[in-house]
Amino acid sequence: MKYILILLFSGFVANAQIKTTSLDLMPWPQKIEMKSGTFTLDKNFKVNIKGQPDARIFQAATHFLRRLDGRTGLFLEQGFVTKENEFPTASLQINCAKAGKTGLYEDESYQLEIQSTGITINATSDLGAIHALETVLQLLQNNASSFYFPMVSITDFPRFTWRGLMIDAARHFQPVDVIKRNLDAMAAVKMNVFHWHLVDDQGWRIEMKKHPRFTELASDGDYYTQEEIKDIVKYADQRGIMVIPEIDVPGHATAILTAYPEIGSKVVNSNANFLENKTQTSTIAPYSLERNSGIFTPTIDPSNPRTYELLSEIFDEVCPLFSGKYFHIGGDENEGKDWDANPKIQAFMKKNKLANNHELQTYFTMQLIPMLKKHQKELMGWEEIMTKNMSKEAVIHSWRGPNEGLLSGQSLVIAAKSGYKTVLSNGYYIDLMQSVADHYLNDPIAKNIALTSEERARILGGEAVMWSELVTPLTIDSRIWPRTAAIAERLWSDAAITDLSSLRKRLKTISFRLEELGITHLKNKDVILRNISNNQKTEALEDFSKICEPLKIYTRNSEGTEYKVYSPLTLFADVCTPDAEDAVAFEVAVNQYLENKSPENQNRVTDFLKKWIEINSKLIALSSNAPLIQPILPLSKNISEASQQLLLKIEKKQAVNTAILSDLIEQCNSKKYADVELAVYSSLIKLL
Amino acid sequence: MKYILILLFSGFVANAQIKTTSLDLMPWPQKIEMKSGTFTLDKNFKVNIKGQPDARIFQAATHFLRRLDGRTGLFLEQGFVTKENEFPTASLQINCAKAGKTGLYEDESYQLEIQSTGITINATSDLGAIHALETVLQLLQNNASSFYFPMVSITDFPRFTWRGLMIDAARHFQPVDVIKRNLDAMAAVKMNVFHWHLVDDQGWRIEMKKHPRFTELASDGDYYTQEEIKDIVKYADQRGIMVIPEIDVPGHATAILTAYPEIGSKVVNSNANFLENKTQTSTIAPYSLERNSGIFTPTIDPSNPRTYELLSEIFDEVCPLFSGKYFHIGGDENEGKDWDANPKIQAFMKKNKLANNHELQTYFTMQLIPMLKKHQKELMGWEEIMTKNMSKEAVIHSWRGPNEGLLSGQSLVIAAKSGYKTVLSNGYYIDLMQSVADHYLNDPIAKNIALTSEERARILGGEAVMWSELVTPLTIDSRIWPRTAAIAERLWSDAAITDLSSLRKRLKTISFRLEELGITHLKNKDVILRNISNNQKTEALEDFSKICEPLKIYTRNSEGTEYKVYSPLTLFADVCTPDAEDAVAFEVAVNQYLENKSPENQNRVTDFLKKWIEINSKLIALSSNAPLIQPILPLSKNISEASQQLLLKIEKKQAVNTAILSDLIEQCNSKKYADVELAVYSSLIKLL
Repeated sequence: MKYILILLFSGFVANAQIKTTSLDLMPWPQKIEMKSGTFTLDKNFKVNIKGQPDARIFQAATHFLRRLDGRTGLFLEQGFVTKENEFPTASLQINCAKAGKTGLYEDESYQLEIQSTGITINATSDLGAIHALETVLQLLQNNASSFYFPMVSITDFPRFTWRGLMIDAARHFQPVDVIKRNLDAMAAVKMNVFHWHLVDDQGWRIEMKKHPRFTELASDGDYYTQEEIKDIVKYADQRGIMVIPEIDVPGHATAILTAYPEIGSKVVNSNANFLENKTQTSTIAPYSLERNSGIFTPTIDPSNPRTYELLSEIFDEVCPLFSGKYFHIGGDENEGKDWDANPKIQAFMKKNKLANNHELQTYFTMQLIPMLKKHQKELMGWEEIMTKNMSKEAVIHSWRGPNEGLLSGQSLVIAAKSGYKTVLSNGYYIDLMQSVADHYLNDPIAKNIALTSEERARILGGEAVMWSELVTPLTIDSRIWPRTAAIAERLWSDAAITDLSSLRKRLKTISFRLEELGITHLKNKDVILRNISNNQKTEALEDFSKICEPLKIYTRNSEGTEYKVYSPLTLFADVCTPDAEDAVAFEVAVNQYLENKSPENQNRVTDFLKKWIEINSKLIALSSNAPLIQPILPLSKNISEASQQLLLKIEKKQAVNTAILSDLIEQCNSKKYADVELAVYSSLIKLL
Repeated sequence: MKYILILLFSGFVANAQIKTTSLDLMPWPQKIEMKSGTFTLDKNFKVNIKGQPDARIFQAATHFLRRLDGRTGLFLEQGFVTKENEFPTASLQINCAKAGKTGLYEDESYQLEIQSTGITINATSDLGAIHALETVLQLLQNNASSFYFPMVSITDFPRFTWRGLMIDAARHFQPVDVIKRNLDAMAAVKMNVFHWHLVDDQGWRIEMKKHPRFTELASDGDYYTQEEIKDIVKYADQRGIMVIPEIDVPGHATAILTAYPEIGSKVVNSNANFLENKTQTSTIAPYSLERNSGIFTPTIDPSNPRTYELLSEIFDEVCPLFSGKYFHIGGDENEGKDWDANPKIQAFMKKNKLANNHELQTYFTMQLIPMLKKHQKELMGWEEIMTKNMSKEAVIHSWRGPNEGLLSGQSLVIAAKSGYKTVLSNGYYIDLMQSVADHYLNDPIAKNIALTSEERARILGGEAVMWSELVTPLTIDSRIWPRTAAIAERLWSDAAITDLSSLRKRLKTISFRLEELGITHLKNKDVILRNISNNQKTEALEDFSKICEPLKIYTRNSEGTEYKVYSPLTLFADVCTPDAEDAVAFEVAVNQYLENKSPENQNRVTDFLKKWIEINSKLIALSSNAPLIQPILPLSKNISEASQQLLLKIEKKQAVNTAILSDLIEQCNSKKYADVELAVYSSLIKLL
């Protein structure tokens, strides 16, 4: 019997050589059948492409070969894949029926068949075939001396058509190489939408040939040239990724108004008439680029005809740089304070029968729709744009939830039920420093909500969002990856794929493999630790980082003023990540010990405690030549002292005063030091 | 007495708080006086700029603040430095008399005064001030809790005006971010010439708007756009670095001839007259992009008028992209085989009374001088262009030496004596994988050669050259840095600064600090080791890499065919570097032990031997799940077995057969495995 068992989603095969549970695939395919046997790689391995694919498949196949060769060191003979049917007898045969079109609703499915004699990929479009190549790379196995693929049959397709990542390049500029390597990583986990947040209070990041004031006055010299933007759009398209630009209006507009204060809403103090040209200067308020984080007052004036002239000119210049169908205009967090205080705007509202700021913003947003339509773009905005008169053509980006006092995903459901296409980001805010589990279990289609099939179809998918107030090019990858791979799986795979221990296991391999694409989440950690340690040994710091996590949900920069856009982000909090490795392992150890106090289980717990006592000593020693370690010492002292007492208690060497121990553990819950928290606190209290 | 002692070049101050020997400055300043006392940093530290500097100084000062803040975590209050005399009371005062002009012969000197109350930089040009900022960063000291600068008075200026680094972007393309971070690193060690090798047999790397065939047919899609080139030239200029482009002709021309075969010298077999248009096709030979390394036959035809038309068009398009005064036309390693075999060319030589290929090449090169002069560029070429009729306006790039059967630097002296300006690269071939000591002690002006002051003045300086046959963007930094800092010191500092132990000590700190600029030499080592280990622990591999060095002087790719341009460079040899850390330390230990067999000295040696025995066991264990470790095992077995016998001999636990031991050590001299050699062999044989 050749087919031993058909396995859907998970599980394993008795008697088969390789179990599906041993495969570190992510996103998990829709259907996978394991067979007994393998296909072994050697240097003669070649790729052949047939059908009517887009030319991007040749570059994708060439990259595939280079990555495979980099992993295996086989010195593969095939150099470049440049044309169709070049090697009809190649071991890897790709058949594509048609050229795929990057964007929504394209057929991204593929079938992958690995037999002992070779590999076959069948896909409707080359986009499906490119996904299949990533699956092949994830299937690579090895023993001591060779590399091989398991015999397997996979049928795969995405659950949602919008599987996005947003990167904020406004708060901290992210150069072209950061964007490109993240596009590579997105493609590796089959994501297909890159949302590029290009304009916010802290900077305008697009070269404007007709309006050079934007970059001259509002970018600090950090912006993308139009050629770079076109290059990135092409780079993304080569990987089947659509790029959605965002220019955030009418709020979040400090950068725009720094360049063009004449379209601002702020009322100018008439005492400012000290300049010669009174009439002109007295009507324009000054703005300057924002250096802090938060929600700010500067807002575009919707009553000023010049506003629409300028925005139309902006769209005329920016739209042609992008080939995708959508343009994100922001629309979020508009306070309206300057509207309320501006008599001219109040008069405009009265004249146009606009009852409140919501209606005024709707009026404003509606003016943008034809400007975008002129360039075949559909308008997308954050959920605040969804007011009663908003066009149903707009795409609603759902982002608010419990942090904003609302139900999770509420706007998504309202949008879908109201006839809007919609995308979920609430629950996918990867800058909040929450556990990957929180994001992973956040499904765009909640089980308890009844939706018609039309309403479901309007839920396009979801998008991880990476706001950049607290990240630089040095650290951004470590906040995005590997966690975004879990969100990619949520958006691609079946809703039933929710096993957290499988996720964590697979994520370790995915994380490792992301280095191949230049993702810096692992290697830049060492860079920062070397800086903190002042070029001394980094082991103790690294071990300590495995139980510390950065403060969550914006508490690191709670007033938005501790960290300005130029503040150092080379600190201990910048190497710590959510899901601190040893904290996760310690939790498991504590739970096992509390269930069964065997010597082995006890040792597993006490080994951690001893390690933390030792770390504290080592950090004290290192700190004599490393001022950046000083802020961490109170924290390592706390955990060391609590560990000492817990050791005495657990090993029963000495009577321990519970009140004192309780106090010591409580101190491990401090959030006062070094912008991090001890992620083991919740496990420590269980040991009391 | 405020000034304790005047110290030139090196030495230390008795009784002073900080000794000059404790400073990790590189290049070492011309004159340094230490005083007693310090200036301590706090968050109020600010920079103020006065005088008539170029605007580049503002960006340089802003970068300086960000680097200082990244190291110290002080949250410096000053964000951006954007205008003159913004903070008249700032602790760091910069005075520049004039705007510097990037290029040769500019005044790059500076004076730096650090007192307990603040820092003063005086410089003729902003280029000198920018050098001073790098010195300030190198002077940063710390104790347990604070950062400070020693009180010091420095007068500094370069010995040579040409302090260059060449990067070959033809053999392996090096993207913009690689170039930019290397420009930052060059500036950190006060280098001022970036020589960009843009065209060779393996690729044409310049976007050509009028001749798109170059990149379409001869780049594999890897090239710099003209906008990127201009951006890099500007980026370099911001750092006081002049960019010299190189298009290598008439040899090394496979890429050029792949795009324009009609200017090739190859005679076509007349049997190829199978095409319709006989006359045209039969005179054009086909060329295809070279995938191997070496010296190849394809050569431009100097007898063809179309050659000069095309080259003139090329220079018309490429020259305006660069602001520097020089253009490198290569001219090296022209075999002339196709010239010898081509009757048309032979007839041309006869007609023009060109006696041999040298004279023909001179004829060819002389045609290029006016093409470049049209764009205010002077011609530079590798030393082969220096023939008897070559214009004295040409700059001679001296590169050949013992490897080519010539005396080291011979052509440099001949050039200087013959009236040519000249630059030394022989001895600075950092791709040869030789010890940094070899490069460091290689002075452009050899002591034993008598030169007049005019002749000396023609020796402009030197240039480290990084050929890229065996490096990718992943590994190139680890071949360039930190070793190029030693060459930078040779070219900047006094000729008397030659102490190797001081160099090695300072280089460790410089190496660490290069990470701040994004140089990847340290962090990418971990990336490759994780790949080799297949995501297992990397310690044993890393320790083993500390006694292994890549095969030297092109023996790694001796026939030029093992490694093609697409071969994997993710192997063990790619993490090993010259001056293997533990090999250097072991040599010291062995020498001490042989001088004095004290128990301490013995232990120092035997600790190494024990470590290597342990490494072998660990590598064997790891290899069961990591095929890429297999090729290393014979080598770790050799050193382990030799170490075991040596241990027995040294610790006198057992009689050792000297013949067997000798054999085992001899096996440690093998160069057969994994493209590396054991760098401890020469120390091991001393222990026999």
